[in-house]
Amino acid sequence: MSVTLAQARSVIEAGEAKAAEIGQPMNIAVVDAGGNLVAHARMDGAWIGSIDISINKAYTSRAFDIATKDLAEHSQSGGQFFGIHASNRGRVMIFAGGIPLRRDGAVVGAVGVSGGTGEQDQAVAEAAAAVF
Amino acid sequence: MSVTLAQARSVIEAGEAKAAEIGQPMNIAVVDAGGNLVAHARMDGAWIGSIDISINKAYTSRAFDIATKDLAEHSQSGGQFFGIHASNRGRVMIFAGGIPLRRDGAVVGAVGVSGGTGEQDQAVAEAAAAVF
Amino acid sequence: MSVTLAQARSVIEAGEAKAAEIGQPMNIAVVDAGGNLVAHARMDGAWIGSIDISINKAYTSRAFDIATKDLAEHSQSGGQFFGIHASNRGRVMIFAGGIPLRRDGAVVGAVGVSGGTGEQDQAVAEAAAAVF
Amino acid sequence: MSVTLAQARSVIEAGEAKAAEIGQPMNIAVVDAGGNLVAHARMDGAWIGSIDISINKAYTSRAFDIATKDLAEHSQSGGQFFGIHASNRGRVMIFAGGIPLRRDGAVVGAVGVSGGTGEQDQAVAEAAAAVF
Repeated sequence: MSVTLAQARSVIEAGEAKAAEIGQPMNIAVVDAGGNLVAHARMDGAWIGSIDISINKAYTSRAFDIATKDLAEHSQSGGQFFGIHASNRGRVMIFAGGIPLRRDGAVVGAVGVSGGTGEQDQAVAEAAAAVF
Repeated sequence: MSVTLAQARSVIEAGEAKAAEIGQPMNIAVVDAGGNLVAHARMDGAWIGSIDISINKAYTSRAFDIATKDLAEHSQSGGQFFGIHASNRGRVMIFAGGIPLRRDGAVVGAVGVSGGTGEQDQAVAEAAAAVF
Repeated sequence: MSVTLAQARSVIEAGEAKAAEIGQPMNIAVVDAGGNLVAHARMDGAWIGSIDISINKAYTSRAFDIATKDLAEHSQSGGQFFGIHASNRGRVMIFAGGIPLRRDGAVVGAVGVSGGTGEQDQAVAEAAAAVF
Repeated sequence: MSVTLAQARSVIEAGEAKAAEIGQPMNIAVVDAGGNLVAHARMDGAWIGSIDISINKAYTSRAFDIATKDLAEHSQSGGQFFGIHASNRGRVMIFAGGIPLRRDGAVVGAVGVSGGTGEQDQAVAEAAAAVF
């Protein structure tokens, strides 16, 4: 089981709706069970630096089957995973906005959102993941 | 002038229709005037190695305002641009599938397609670019 | 709207004047709306390690439409963006010296300065951006 | 002995004049004796993919004290240096447009030009280097 393009688009669409609601354009990306990109969308006006971040937040969430917000807690200076952001050729994102997508309890993909504050990114990612 | 998300999606949709017609799932990506990703879609069953290639074919077409198929002609051993594929941190793709998107004669973005033979990629890219 | 070479040179020239005033040679770079380099100058005696930093401070300021000094506040350990410096292939600079260039309220490019203390870099970047 | 910023600017200015004469906007870069960037300029309308190439043509010319056009002859498939473009983290450019800058017979820097055909790049680089 993984994530189809149609499912990825539903997830992105839900994220876009939430982003529009809070008035902050976002980059939204979905990866499959292999951590590989299924679809990405940059809303008009969203930061170009967030393209890479949205894709890699999704990657990170699937790579470790965890929300990046939770990974962040253990990845600060002094934490048990501090320095993990240097691994995987710079693909590990340790701040809010990446959430695993689950089917019957198993992680089968992830969504990553970037374009606003950590709180905004997280809210959009949650709204996106909720429709999966 | 650049490429909006709505325009990028129309381009991708047209590419998908052509890919379905020829029966070969593809990765399709669109970049804006700055060479930055606007949207990407991987059709179900398309190669994961083609994610990066589709995005970078689009990048290359905008970076040099040329179809990657045409750049390829000059980039073979003995050609005037041989070795260009080593530049830009490995982002320059020198085989068919990337086509500039134009408005009033100016290149304002590009589409990149990867997932089949060079001929198939090119056919899908042409169908995609045609609706812009 | 973006940044022309003539405009970039005016920005760099203003930065150089300020750098000369404070007696610290600097690297100064300007990027356009797409985050791509328009012009760079390394003043005689300026650090060679600051070439990359100046270019990437400018990139970062445009990539997130923010002064790198402000991004720095949120990117320390414990902050909402901690770890962002690992993204974008190492191009995100999270210390003072990068400032967006605006036209009619919109960010259309950025200037990046590196070669001294954070305070010096920031002072030179401010003087440079002021003439845009 | 190396290349000052003032000298680099004279070299770039001469290159721009030649580029304007032939009607092809260019990226022009100058590096010092250490192979490190002194100054770069992208003329309005020049390819964004040529930013990196111009800087690295200059780097390559100083790195091996040779015109990239000449290095190209030995770097084609079958040549004694074939594969050299994979070295130095992708910084070695093996096509025309990079020329060493000499003082009293010694190479003290280099200029790199990218934005047109190999012939155009070479013509602009020669005009640029001639004023040094």
